[in-house]
Amino acid sequence: MSQLIEKCERLKEATLGLATASTKVKNQALILVSKALEENTPFILSENEKDIAVAREKGMKESLIDRLRLNHARMQGMIDAIETVVQLKDPIWQSDQVWTLENGLTINKMTVPLGVIGIIYESRPNVTVDAFSLALKSGNGILLRGSSSAIHSNLALVRVIRDGLAKSQISPEVVQLIEDLDRKVVGEMLRLNEYIDVIIPRGGAELIRFVVDNATVPTIETGTGNCHVYVDESAKLEAALDIVENAKVQRPGACNACETLLVHEKVASEFLPQVAARLKDKVELRGCSQTQQLIQVNPATESDWAEEFLDYILAIKIVNNMEEAMAHIRQYGTKHSEAIITENYTHANLFLRGVDAAAVYVNASTRFTDGGEFGFGGEMGISTQKIHARGPMGLKELVTIKYVMVGNGQIRE
Amino acid sequence: MSQLIEKCERLKEATLGLATASTKVKNQALILVSKALEENTPFILSENEKDIAVAREKGMKESLIDRLRLNHARMQGMIDAIETVVQLKDPIWQSDQVWTLENGLTINKMTVPLGVIGIIYESRPNVTVDAFSLALKSGNGILLRGSSSAIHSNLALVRVIRDGLAKSQISPEVVQLIEDLDRKVVGEMLRLNEYIDVIIPRGGAELIRFVVDNATVPTIETGTGNCHVYVDESAKLEAALDIVENAKVQRPGACNACETLLVHEKVASEFLPQVAARLKDKVELRGCSQTQQLIQVNPATESDWAEEFLDYILAIKIVNNMEEAMAHIRQYGTKHSEAIITENYTHANLFLRGVDAAAVYVNASTRFTDGGEFGFGGEMGISTQKIHARGPMGLKELVTIKYVMVGNGQIRE
Repeated sequence: MSQLIEKCERLKEATLGLATASTKVKNQALILVSKALEENTPFILSENEKDIAVAREKGMKESLIDRLRLNHARMQGMIDAIETVVQLKDPIWQSDQVWTLENGLTINKMTVPLGVIGIIYESRPNVTVDAFSLALKSGNGILLRGSSSAIHSNLALVRVIRDGLAKSQISPEVVQLIEDLDRKVVGEMLRLNEYIDVIIPRGGAELIRFVVDNATVPTIETGTGNCHVYVDESAKLEAALDIVENAKVQRPGACNACETLLVHEKVASEFLPQVAARLKDKVELRGCSQTQQLIQVNPATESDWAEEFLDYILAIKIVNNMEEAMAHIRQYGTKHSEAIITENYTHANLFLRGVDAAAVYVNASTRFTDGGEFGFGGEMGISTQKIHARGPMGLKELVTIKYVMVGNGQIRE
Repeated sequence: MSQLIEKCERLKEATLGLATASTKVKNQALILVSKALEENTPFILSENEKDIAVAREKGMKESLIDRLRLNHARMQGMIDAIETVVQLKDPIWQSDQVWTLENGLTINKMTVPLGVIGIIYESRPNVTVDAFSLALKSGNGILLRGSSSAIHSNLALVRVIRDGLAKSQISPEVVQLIEDLDRKVVGEMLRLNEYIDVIIPRGGAELIRFVVDNATVPTIETGTGNCHVYVDESAKLEAALDIVENAKVQRPGACNACETLLVHEKVASEFLPQVAARLKDKVELRGCSQTQQLIQVNPATESDWAEEFLDYILAIKIVNNMEEAMAHIRQYGTKHSEAIITENYTHANLFLRGVDAAAVYVNASTRFTDGGEFGFGGEMGISTQKIHARGPMGLKELVTIKYVMVGNGQIRE
């Protein structure tokens, strides 16, 4: 039996008990874990230093090293996130649909855990703690496969989480970290339908493509966000400027950052110079031919419309009307987060109804598509597919249902 | 461009308009289709005769030919099912979750159509009409891939459906039938992520395996049901007998039929002779060694516990207690429909909570796990996976959501 299968066996077994654990027991376990993280912060930080040292040796970019780095503030952030999850309502064994058939058989649609969630992530070590705490509160076991660059940090975090659980009534086996860094293990994981109920890939486009192409386990795609802000003819330009800046600059590496700005031709000559002034020195602008006549920009190519820059780059296109903006979004968007800035009531409604995306905005920054902002206490990822969950996945998205049928001898006619 | 891609292009385009069609327009279209089916019944029945003739030539079993056969009563059944769907509440653009962030940004979780649903089915021609009507009411386009044995019937049904739509405000292009019977086309369909939002395979275990192994389009597995009835020590045996008979005999080819009977040892000597008497001449019984000592049965082998007979065969096992019954179900069940027959309150609750299946029953036949019985107006299939939907899939299961974000200039801090 491979090490992976052995872990999966223990995980599956332990998850059985977790499925029906009471809210109190789950919350006590989470609190014990948060205490363990607090007490073991020096150990975790020193293990994290090892990852940083390796990354330096390998010449990793400083911006990426910063993503990897843990410190006291970031540790506190993780601990606070667990406390938020403790406060949230238990999503398990809830129902909002009960009905009774003519023959007296009562049907009760109850929420139950998914079972075992597999997560493959390339992100910061805090994902380890977020994924664990959301999974535990929703009664799910979790199989973690983090990036090799964070292996020391993840090993330390999982060790401390399990130490915390050991003092609780929940088995430490409900959380397992894959330590084998061989890529082949990911391929194996993707086909463990017997052990894993859903796999969530959280990372770059290449990882997600690999998972979608190779998984037989049901998968929830996350991530890719080619998001647009469309500034309509009737927009309040001052607010539009703040929103464009925020959506582009506040955290350009996030999937909900704006990549292309679409501007109605009637306001372009007034608005675009303001954009150029506000973003100059911070953002590289790439414009369509009309834009090039109004402000100093690099020419945008066809591939710029399709690209998720995840960087300080903004593509700009002038459109004749809202319909053209919506058609552009339909052609190039990834159905993540799309915004219209307008004072026109009809346009707002048409955009909200007609644009197909996880989140559609009127007069706000696309940066709010986020589990923390939504009040979900973190997120397991942001779904960009349409089945099961769409947008930020919090506790409510980590459940399935069970029809509980209560009868007194009913048989089918 | 292949014929398949060409159909998909037209389907995707037409589905855009369907997504925001009003309930009235959708219902009018459904009524026009039901009228077209009524008026064209002679044509459909004569095309169906061609399938029957081919099936006879090929030596198809009479029971399978019966599944293929349409007649006036079955046509009326389809028409009635459409009328039920007309009566059901529109599942689109509904919300039961609206909240406002501290900064005033309002989040509204609205239901929207999935987009394009692909269905691959081996079942009776009525699936063509059921799948179409559920898809249309939920604002989804549908790509149908029926079995080659029903090709004349399906061509006729889709032609009549499209004729009906041609008189409505909905484009006939929202329903497309794949006419190419080459198996390779299914393989191609499974990877059309650009055109298809979800694929539902509805058929035998082999088809479902093929789809799961090869699809990159998100898939909802359906079907396999190795269902159990457990007769507890405290069961009312008369009711138990009726339920076992109903669950096994009423339609043994259905996925919600009972395949294995589990009996508490304390009631086995009283109950099993009654089972044998009731089912004799109708059902082949295969029992464990203890069962063999009580009634005349063939010996059950290990593989019998795992098999979905879909036939007049019942495996029987005597267990020491409910825990053993639950462990057996955990080991061999397919998480479809599981029943306990008991008068013991605690046992009922433990079984309902502890057995992991789409539907768990106390004191009723497993045969109720069915969209029609649930009041869903038919079903797109019965999901046996945990993501997106579980159990019978009706209108509510054919939607995804969109977060509608209404702001007045909010940016992220």
